Amino acid sequence: MTEEKAEEKNKMASVFLPALGGVAVCGGTHGNELSGVYLVQEMERQRKERGDGVWPIPVTTVLSNPRAVKECRRYIDTDMNRCFSKAVLSTPITDSSPYEVRRAQELNNLLGVKGSDDVMDMICDLHNTTSNMGLTLIHYSASDWVTLHICKYLQTKITKVPVRVLVLDFPINDAYNLESVSKHGFTLEVGPQPQGVVRADIYVIMKEAVDLTIDWIHKFNSGTVFEGGDVEVFKFIKSVDYPRDPETRNLTAAVHPQLQDRDFCLLKRGDPLFLSFSGETVTCEEEEPLHPFFINEGAYYEKGIAFHLAKKWTLTVPSVQVQTTNSA
Amino acid sequence: MTEEKAEEKNKMASVFLPALGGVAVCGGTHGNELSGVYLVQEMERQRKERGDGVWPIPVTTVLSNPRAVKECRRYIDTDMNRCFSKAVLSTPITDSSPYEVRRAQELNNLLGVKGSDDVMDMICDLHNTTSNMGLTLIHYSASDWVTLHICKYLQTKITKVPVRVLVLDFPINDAYNLESVSKHGFTLEVGPQPQGVVRADIYVIMKEAVDLTIDWIHKFNSGTVFEGGDVEVFKFIKSVDYPRDPETRNLTAAVHPQLQDRDFCLLKRGDPLFLSFSGETVTCEEEEPLHPFFINEGAYYEKGIAFHLAKKWTLTVPSVQVQTTNSA
Repeated sequence: MTEEKAEEKNKMASVFLPALGGVAVCGGTHGNELSGVYLVQEMERQRKERGDGVWPIPVTTVLSNPRAVKECRRYIDTDMNRCFSKAVLSTPITDSSPYEVRRAQELNNLLGVKGSDDVMDMICDLHNTTSNMGLTLIHYSASDWVTLHICKYLQTKITKVPVRVLVLDFPINDAYNLESVSKHGFTLEVGPQPQGVVRADIYVIMKEAVDLTIDWIHKFNSGTVFEGGDVEVFKFIKSVDYPRDPETRNLTAAVHPQLQDRDFCLLKRGDPLFLSFSGETVTCEEEEPLHPFFINEGAYYEKGIAFHLAKKWTLTVPSVQVQTTNSA
Repeated sequence: MTEEKAEEKNKMASVFLPALGGVAVCGGTHGNELSGVYLVQEMERQRKERGDGVWPIPVTTVLSNPRAVKECRRYIDTDMNRCFSKAVLSTPITDSSPYEVRRAQELNNLLGVKGSDDVMDMICDLHNTTSNMGLTLIHYSASDWVTLHICKYLQTKITKVPVRVLVLDFPINDAYNLESVSKHGFTLEVGPQPQGVVRADIYVIMKEAVDLTIDWIHKFNSGTVFEGGDVEVFKFIKSVDYPRDPETRNLTAAVHPQLQDRDFCLLKRGDPLFLSFSGETVTCEEEEPLHPFFINEGAYYEKGIAFHLAKKWTLTVPSVQVQTTNSA
C-alpha cells in the first residue's frame, strides 16, 4: 500500500467510542439568562406529563442556581460558572462560603465527581448573552470527537442563525465552567437576549439545539456512523476592556456602533472599537486581524471585558461510531 | 367677526407662558438603565471641564439612585419611579423605610417640593427599556403646552428613530414618576437596550434628545414663537400579563415572535400574542384594535405586565411664546 492510500484509509476509518449514557441539560447557571430556565422547566413539565419515555435517551434536567433564578440575578455571591475548577470544587465549605461555591460542590456530587469515572457522559449547559452571537457552542478541548461531532451536526441542521464553535483549550482541571464536570459536553450560548427577558425566537433556537443534541446521542448509540470532516472553530486569544477613567474606573466610552452586533467579524487595525461619551472614536491597534466575540456582553462590565478576541482555525475530525461487542 | 374667523384667530393667537428657569436632567432613577447614567456623568464631566456656561440655560444634573447604580440593579428595596406620589412623598421616614422612599423624599426636597411654587420648571428623567420603543416621551398631562411643544420639536428634529408621545393623563398628585415633581417635563425612554448594558446608538439618541430639549428651552426663553399644530399621542388604556401557571405563577409562554419588537403597531383581534414554551400560539381577543407598547420589557415581569395597550389620538396645541413685560 502506498503512503497516500494508507493516509486515505486512515481518514476513512471510524474511531469507535463507547455509547453515551445520556445528557444532563442544565439551565439557570446564571439566574437572569431566562431561555435556559424556561427550557428546563418546560422539559420537567413534559416529563411529568408524559414520563421518562418522552426522550429516547436518559435525560437529567437541572436548575443550576435556584436562588439566583428566584431573584432573577446572575448570581447571589459569586459567578457560579467560574466555580467548577478542581481547586474551587475541593475548597472546604465553611459558614462563610459563597452560596455558589456550595451549590457548585452539590452539582459536582450530583453530576460528577469531576475527573472520576462516574461523571455524566455529557452536560449541555444553557446560557444567554446580550451579544449578537447567534448560537455558540463553547467547550474545552480540540480533540473531543463526540462534542465536535455534535457541534458539526448542529451546524448542519440549524439554519436560522449562525452556529459557531469556540474552543477554550485549557487543561480540564483548570476549566471552571459547569460543563467541564462531564466527559463531553458544551456551554450553549444563544443571543442576543437581554438579561431578565425571554425572547421566543431565542428560546426556540435553544430548544432546537437541545433536541438535536438528544437526537445525535440517540442516533450514535443506535449505530449511526457519523462521517468525519473539517470543523471550523474559534480559539480564544485575549480579552479587551473598555476605555475607563483612570481614577473612578468608570467607562468613558461604549462599543462603537460599527462594531456593536458584529460578533465574529474580522477586526483589523484601524477599525472603530469604541465611541467615547463625548463623541470620539477609538480604533483597533492590533497587529493581527482577529475575530471579536461577546461584544458588549452585559455580565462582563464587572469583569473588565468589552469583548474577547479569537483566531479561526480548522479542525479535522475523524468519523465516529459506537463501540459494540464486535468492534471493542 | 364671524364665528369661523374668531375660531381662526383663536387658533393663530399665541399662548403667552412664563420663561423657564432651566431643566433638571436625571439619570439612574433605575440603576441598570445605563444610557442615562453615562449621560449624566458625561454632562457632569463637561461642567467640570468647561464651567456652567457649557449650556445656555441653567442645567441641574442628578444621579437619582446612586446605590442602585453602584450595584447595577433597577432598585435596592423598591422601584423608586413609583415613589413620587403625594402619598409616598409624605410618608414618615422610619428605620425600616425602603431606601428608595428615603431617596425620593430627598429628591423631592432638592427638585420640589412637589405641588409647591418652588418646584423645578422641568425635569427630564432618562430611562432605557428592553422594548423596541425608539424614543418615547412619557408625561402626565394632555394640556401642558410646554411639554407637548418640546415633544413636537423632538419629533421634528430626530429622524434616526421614531419619536412617540405617551400620555398617562391622571391626576398629578397620584402621579408616581420622578418627572411629576416638576411643573413640566417628561420621562425619556429609549430602547431597545438590555439592562446593565450601554449601546452607543441608544446613548447617542438620548444625548440628542437632551441637547434638543435644552435648545428648545433656550429658544423659547429668547422669544422664539413656536407654531401650534397637531401632536399625535398615545394614551394608556390597560396592561396585559403573560400566560402563567395557575399554581406556580411561572410564565408558560413568551411574547410571540410576530409581536416582539413591534411596539406601537396596531394589534387586532386574532393577531398572535404569545408562543407557549411547548409551541402553541395564543391570539389577541380584544374587541377594539389597540397599540401595544413596552412589549416584553424586562423590568415588568415582576409587575405582571407583558405589554401595555394604548389608543392613538390627536392633540391640538396652540402656538406658544414667552411672556414678557409687554405681553404679561
